[in-house]
Amino acid sequence: MRYPNGKIYRPDNASLTPPAKKFKQASFGRRGMKLERLINEANMYYLTKDIAVIHKKPTPIQVVSVSYPKRSRAKITEAYYRQASTTDYNGIYQGNYIDFEAKQTALKTRFPLHNFHHHQIHHMNACVKQGGICFVIFYFSSLNLAYLYPEFALSKDWTAYELGDVVSIPLARIQKMGIPIKLGGLPYIHYLAAIDELLRTRRENA
Amino acid sequence: MRYPNGKIYRPDNASLTPPAKKFKQASFGRRGMKLERLINEANMYYLTKDIAVIHKKPTPIQVVSVSYPKRSRAKITEAYYRQASTTDYNGIYQGNYIDFEAKQTALKTRFPLHNFHHHQIHHMNACVKQGGICFVIFYFSSLNLAYLYPEFALSKDWTAYELGDVVSIPLARIQKMGIPIKLGGLPYIHYLAAIDELLRTRRENA
Repeated sequence: MRYPNGKIYRPDNASLTPPAKKFKQASFGRRGMKLERLINEANMYYLTKDIAVIHKKPTPIQVVSVSYPKRSRAKITEAYYRQASTTDYNGIYQGNYIDFEAKQTALKTRFPLHNFHHHQIHHMNACVKQGGICFVIFYFSSLNLAYLYPEFALSKDWTAYELGDVVSIPLARIQKMGIPIKLGGLPYIHYLAAIDELLRTRRENA
Repeated sequence: MRYPNGKIYRPDNASLTPPAKKFKQASFGRRGMKLERLINEANMYYLTKDIAVIHKKPTPIQVVSVSYPKRSRAKITEAYYRQASTTDYNGIYQGNYIDFEAKQTALKTRFPLHNFHHHQIHHMNACVKQGGICFVIFYFSSLNLAYLYPEFALSKDWTAYELGDVVSIPLARIQKMGIPIKLGGLPYIHYLAAIDELLRTRRENA
């Protein structure tokens, strides 16, 4: 079917779909995307739809010197990255304080614990004491699998790590203690559905 | 009383107290301190005492170029301040999501609304919809007075400001709609006490 301008008819969103041969499609299509970008997209989706208000905190930077060029804005000319004292993301979802860290790995069987810092764990412990929902989102990029891993499980792993008993969390443990996050819908990484399940499990066990 | 080394005896912490003539003391002693520092001190106090977990978010900075000197950490050589898309502080207190902005003025009768940005107001609106506790801490430095001013009052002011009807919030209105924050105790700006009162008022009106 052709329109008078000679163009082939396409449904409205057809131009958004890349040709099948050029890109790998389906569930592995976005595998290479950074977890941070996927979570930011999900957060933007939740915000726009009035579902939740969750943001990534800015990266802490120690500013050492700033110049003030005429007629233009302040320019930072010397600064350094500082280590974050908390987690990457926080916000609110249906009255619940949400606080989490997001971690990606290309490994296929485990997540190395040296990727955490003790102040991140302590921060999550403190938030849970106040009634917050704290967890890690693990994304195994080579497997395209994601899990919501609750703070209580991570805290146990961390204690064992500090004692020198373990160096990483086996994927099997993450699968046992965590909640799978479905990938590929809208938003791509719909982690609030996993939080819903976490809250449901808690109510049932309460 | 003199010790063998000829020094006059002082109690252990005497050297920490500046001579009375050199500095103004008592309730006005810290008047010149920046509000941000006072709130950070309060947050540190709450954190240490397991009372609440509330942090200032890092200032958002757009990094343009980074150099990697040998044997030393990454140095940011060009960067710019970005406008924050949310508020300055958030966290959790007894299960409540807390989100606020802190504003200081040397004026004695009003607070000019141009010091807010619309995305700060929208962010607070969105958090309140999710059940969060959102407010501004106003600090009138010349008067040494501080108030917790709830989001619903600010939102009304902001609407009037956007319509061009008002340019600032009169102190009298802040005193009427807000909750006074006692200054001078431990922590110096004990704003959680004002949140307690806000929560109490809500329960009574519910």
